[in-house]
This record gives sequence, C-alpha cells and structure tokens, in this order.
Amino acid sequence: MMPRLAPESVAIAERVMDRCDELGAISGSPDLLERVHLSPEHRRANDLVATWMEEAGLATWQDAAGNQCGRLEGAEPGLPALLIGSHLDTVRDAGRYDGMLGVLLAIEVAARIARRDVALPFALEVVGFTDEEGTRFGNALLGSRALAGGFDPAWWDLSDRDGLSLREAFVDFGLDPARIHGAARPPDSLVGYLEAHIEQGPYLEDADRALGVVSSIAGARRFELTMTGVAGHAGGTPYDRRRDALVGASDLVVEIESVGRAAGVIATVGRLQAFPGGINVIPGRVEFSLDLRAEFDRDRDHALAEIRRRAHEIAERRGLRFESREIYRADATPCAPWLREAIASGIRRTGDEEPMILWSRAGHDGMAVSAVTDIAMLFVRCGKGGISHHPDETVEMRDVAFALDAFEDAVSAVAERVQAEPERLGAA
Amino acid sequence: MMPRLAPESVAIAERVMDRCDELGAISGSPDLLERVHLSPEHRRANDLVATWMEEAGLATWQDAAGNQCGRLEGAEPGLPALLIGSHLDTVRDAGRYDGMLGVLLAIEVAARIARRDVALPFALEVVGFTDEEGTRFGNALLGSRALAGGFDPAWWDLSDRDGLSLREAFVDFGLDPARIHGAARPPDSLVGYLEAHIEQGPYLEDADRALGVVSSIAGARRFELTMTGVAGHAGGTPYDRRRDALVGASDLVVEIESVGRAAGVIATVGRLQAFPGGINVIPGRVEFSLDLRAEFDRDRDHALAEIRRRAHEIAERRGLRFESREIYRADATPCAPWLREAIASGIRRTGDEEPMILWSRAGHDGMAVSAVTDIAMLFVRCGKGGISHHPDETVEMRDVAFALDAFEDAVSAVAERVQAEPERLGAA
Repeated sequence: MMPRLAPESVAIAERVMDRCDELGAISGSPDLLERVHLSPEHRRANDLVATWMEEAGLATWQDAAGNQCGRLEGAEPGLPALLIGSHLDTVRDAGRYDGMLGVLLAIEVAARIARRDVALPFALEVVGFTDEEGTRFGNALLGSRALAGGFDPAWWDLSDRDGLSLREAFVDFGLDPARIHGAARPPDSLVGYLEAHIEQGPYLEDADRALGVVSSIAGARRFELTMTGVAGHAGGTPYDRRRDALVGASDLVVEIESVGRAAGVIATVGRLQAFPGGINVIPGRVEFSLDLRAEFDRDRDHALAEIRRRAHEIAERRGLRFESREIYRADATPCAPWLREAIASGIRRTGDEEPMILWSRAGHDGMAVSAVTDIAMLFVRCGKGGISHHPDETVEMRDVAFALDAFEDAVSAVAERVQAEPERLGAA
Repeated sequence: MMPRLAPESVAIAERVMDRCDELGAISGSPDLLERVHLSPEHRRANDLVATWMEEAGLATWQDAAGNQCGRLEGAEPGLPALLIGSHLDTVRDAGRYDGMLGVLLAIEVAARIARRDVALPFALEVVGFTDEEGTRFGNALLGSRALAGGFDPAWWDLSDRDGLSLREAFVDFGLDPARIHGAARPPDSLVGYLEAHIEQGPYLEDADRALGVVSSIAGARRFELTMTGVAGHAGGTPYDRRRDALVGASDLVVEIESVGRAAGVIATVGRLQAFPGGINVIPGRVEFSLDLRAEFDRDRDHALAEIRRRAHEIAERRGLRFESREIYRADATPCAPWLREAIASGIRRTGDEEPMILWSRAGHDGMAVSAVTDIAMLFVRCGKGGISHHPDETVEMRDVAFALDAFEDAVSAVAERVQAEPERLGAA
C-alpha cells in the first residue's frame, strides 16, 4: 500500500507547523527559545494552548501542578479518560517541536473526533505538561509526576539558579503548594496515555520512515558532580604541587565518553563550570553534571559504577576530592503492548505496513504517567540527523500529516479495543 | 651572620599585617575577597591607602588611571623619583597579601625614611597600582601600563561580564578617558621601580629562606579559546553523530597540562564553561582560557604551537571548530642588574649572606613599568607551599619584618649608587 495523505490532513499539519512557530516565539529570552517551569512564558503558552483547545471543542483548565488540560467527554459524561499530549516547556536554546508538536497533534486529533461527533467509550483528554525538561529546577517530569500522584514534598526546596525555591516560584505563579495533590489522577479515572513526539534521533531518518512505534523509554539517572582541589596562582604553583580541579574533571569527562561508548550506554556531561574562574587562577572546584541512559537499567548501572571507579582513581592520582549527588532517577519504562499495537495499527493505516520499532533514548512524560496508567508513544521523524534541543530541530510537514492520521487512528484502535474489552476502562 | 630583627621592625610588621586584614575586608562580595578595577571597593581601598600614605608623611593623589600615589620629596623638590610599591586590586576569592603587602611595605619604608629625615638624592614615590590582575576586563596591568605611557586606546572597548565597557566604567568611577595620558611618567622623571611581593610559589619555603632576589619576570600570553560543536539532545544523539564541544575541550585541557609538563612551561586553563549548559543537552560550545608562562619566551611559544597543533587535531577528529584569540602578551622582563644588586644587598643586611635568586612565574607591574625605567623585585616567602590567589594565602609576620628591613636597605643602596653615579638620575 502506498502512503496516502488526505488534503485535509495536510492543511491541518500546516496549521500545526504554524502553531509550533507561534509557541516557539513565547520565550524568556529575546535571542533564543527558553520556556521554563512557572515562568511568565509558561503562563502565556498555557493560555494560548487553552484557546486552541477551546476552539477544538474541549473544556479547559490548568491543573494544580501547572499542566494545561482540555477534555472532550465520551459517550456519556464522566467516563475514564484516554490522555493524549506531551509537554510545553523547553530546554534553553530549544527547537520548536520537542514537546509542542505532540500537544498540538493531540489537540487536532481531539478536534477531528469532536467534529465527527464520534461517541468514544472514554473521555479524551489533551494534556500539555509543564516541566518535562527540568530546565529550571534540575528535576525533570515535575508536571507528569504530579499528575501521576508522585509529587515528592522534598522537591519544594529545589532551587533555581537565582536561589528561588520551587515552592516560592509556585506561589509566585499563582498556584497553591498545599493543593498540589489535586493534580493527581486516580488510576481508575484513566484508560491510558498516548504521546506523539519527535524522535530526537536519526534512526527513522536513516530508515526512511516517517513514523515509528516506541518499545520502551530508556531509564535515566542524573547526577551533580563536583571535583574539588585547591585554587592557586597560575604562575607560582609548579605542576607537582597543583591540585587542579579542572584538569581532573576534564580527564573524567573524556573517560565518561569512553565508558559510555564501550558499554553501549549514553553518558553526557551537559553542564560544566570551573571556579573561581579567573584566567590566572588554578581552578579549585569544578561543578558538572552527568546524564546516563540505556535501554536496560543494568547496563546503565554498570556504566555508572565504572565511571565512579575512574573518577575516584583520577581524584586520588591528582589529590582531588570527587563527589556525586543523584538528582534524578528513572528506570526504563516499557510501553504497554496493547497500546503499542494501537500505535502500530495507526501507522499501518498511513501505508507503512511494517512499522519500525525503536526505543526512546530520551526521557518522556510517559515515564511518570506509567505509574498510574498504561502508556505508548508514536515517534515522528525529525531531520538533520535527529538534531534536537537546538534551534535547528526540524520536522517535515508531510510527516506531521502522517502523524496526525496515525495518531487519530491509534485513538480509534484504542476505542475498538476498549469496546471489545470493557475491563480496560479504568484498569491501572 | 645570624638573622637579626629590631623590635621596631617587628612592631611595624605587625601593623602591616593588620592593614592587610583591613584592606582584605574591602571586597565586592560578602563571602570572599574580590576587589576589581574601577569598583566602589577600588575607591575605598585607594582612600584608605591614601590616609596611611599621609600619616607616613607623603603627599598623595590618585592618578589619571586610578593608581593611588604618594610622594616624599628628596634632597630638593622635584627630583626624579624612585617608585616603590605594588598593586591594590585582587583576583576573585583572593588572599590578603598578593599586591597589598608590597604597597604597605613601601609605605612603611617611606615612613621610616621620612622619620629619619634622610636627604635622598631622588624623590621616593609609593604607588598602589590598580588592575594588575585583569580580573574585570581580562587585560592585566592596566594601571602600570598607563603609568608607563603604554595605554592602548583599543582597550576602552574591553567589556566586563555585564557588558560594561572599560570606558563606561572609567567614567562611572569619576575618571576622564581623555586624560588617561596624564598618568604616564616620562622616563627622565624616574630613577627605577622596586617592588616587594609574596613569592606565590614554594621555592623560598623549600629553601628555608625568608627573602629572595628576582632575576626576571616570566613572559606570559593569554588566550580566549572556543571549541564549537553542535548542541543536541543528550538522549537522542548517538556517539558517532555527536559533535560534543565539551569532550573536545576536556581532551584539550588534559593535553595542555601534558604539553606544559613536558616543555617546562606553565600552562593553565583557569576558566571553562560549557554552553548552553543544560543537564540533558550535548554542549555545542565551550569557552575557556589559556595562560602560558615560561622563563624564556621561546619555550613558551614552542609550547603554544604544540597546544594549537593538538587542539586542531582534536577538533578535526571530533568534527569541532577550534578558535583562539590572544588577549594579553608580555615577553619576559629581566630585572636591572644594578637594582637586583641593591635588593641583594638589602637581603644581606638581614643576615642572609647569599640571597636566593629566582625567576617570577607570575606577572607583575614591573613588566609594564620596565618600558620607562629599570625595575627589580624582592620576593617574600609565603607559606603552605606558596598557595596564592586563594584565601589561604599566608605570610609570616617575621618574614614581613625582614622584608621591611631589606627593602629599606635596598632603597639606601640605590641612593648610594645614584650618589656615586648621578647619571642614573633620569636614565631610561
């Protein structure tokens, strides 16, 4: 079967692309895209998305965690909901599709279903999560973890770079920390969660596919690392007396890459800064980060042990002190077979008879949502080798149109399955 | 001859130590010592030092570059001056002796000479230079270069971390950029420049000496380095597609150390930061610094060529772009033999018959001043392996007392020499 694309789908895809641009213009910085949790831009994006949700026929609200929600009732009011969506926050200097595309596709799917007046056996809820990236407070998935009832009160004391705590930012945003549990969805109120997202990798592009079925979302662990030595005058301190924290940290950064390559694990140091930072001062302290991901948790944890071993070896050799503090941990999340099959069936309807299956190297809100309901994901090809978290992030309008059709069909497939197996309504 | 120390010298050394503490409390930060060029703390330090100069019997003024000056006339008014002093600015998180000690010792030497009513064959001028370190605008020795008539108008456009230009900061401080040349001293108005400074290294401590004669000040070159790759999502980008600027920069930091060790050159990366700096984003750009020093300029330049070769090799291998921009260059500065001998004779008078001779790994104001007059330096032992540019910087009060006696005797030795060779008055 050849790929087929209705003119209507192309027109909608064009609108989705335009709206990605529109959302991409809501930024905390004039020169680049950055939209972080509980910022004025968070509010502006939620408000704009709420408008689009309402145009699509959804009842809207912002939940107690700052997630933007919209609901289309099913065959009768108050049925458990199939959640569809993605996130609305971004990293710093972000692209316009990571997260946003999935929210906008979900709105269009809901709009089509509302227009066709199909009586689904569940409510359809679109969610635009906040703080999937963890850009501001370092701890990702705050919005989806709150929705899944997993908000940890210890997080209130997380602080941003300006020293503002999550609690303070929450209050400044107009939310009430005491009501955070109102964001939590009971498992029996949910049917499942489907998310469309750009792949953020090169595999679909390399295989010449528009869409793919996600098998599982990689586990990730994140750490704040510190290498401490002794600052000193760059001129007066001979090499054999130096305890240069930056040379030690640099040595480790190179080792981290080598451990990652050897173990088939993705290890990234994204943040690194030397202190005190004077051009003529030997660095006494380096603060850096480590992000570890793998398809299988045990590979990731073995790599971590090896990285720690080498870190302590470097520290000992150079008279430094190495410390690491875990700030995030998520184990690998498998997608539910029945929802994976619904996604695959949606892709097949676009003419791709044997949909490609791939695991997500990146984390997604589904990791948190899986605590309360089954999840699955549809990946959309992105160009340029899958570049993401970068302004060059790109997606083809044609692929967006395919994704729209596939995603709508996936929702229909879930509806058929729920009709055939009504016990799936509200199964945790 | 055994070391001997007059009780009066010990009492003065105690005052010098107290004043180092007092100056050390004038900081732009509540938690650490940082006093940078053209800051409110620069003004406060100058004002306080001016008070002490006046108590010592000097006529004081702040020159057109922001240096604090004080003058004791010689046998007749208006004679060429022997400059003595050091600098009053600091690095970030500095110690209390680097620079300050030399200014305070110079004031005490001038005070003693004023008290004894000795008619010197030259005026004695104490100078507290500003911006020896280059902490704020990256370009060191601004104060002493202005005094030496070497102020380059291109420097007006240097900017600090907040984007404020040197010109703007100069005006905000109450100085007039158009009058900067008023700070320049004609060569025939000067006899020479003597500076006492902590060693900032371990050599005197290792040799169990309080004081040392500096043979020359090492040349230094400083660079801003940039490694540019492509930012991307930490999860989605496989290793073989990454162009991770931080792994490349880290690789180079380790190589820089290894080149420095092998070449007998001191190479330091003091500043390094990865951008955009997201914990889950592959760094697309790293900005870092390089500071290179050696006793001989040719060794330093050979090391630089080797570092550049390795940088380009790393960049090529990793698909990165390496750039370097020179922001400071000073060739090695020899101390004038006749002034070195005056310093040595001062040290001998303290009981150390064969003064240790060593070269300065650190840069000093003398490098700039040598453009207009002969220079020499007295090094004072500092403890703890010579730790400097760090709050743990330390010096013994007993060594300060020896330095005071030696420095005073060095000035007397210069006076004797000038009396014997009057052509030295005003020799460039």
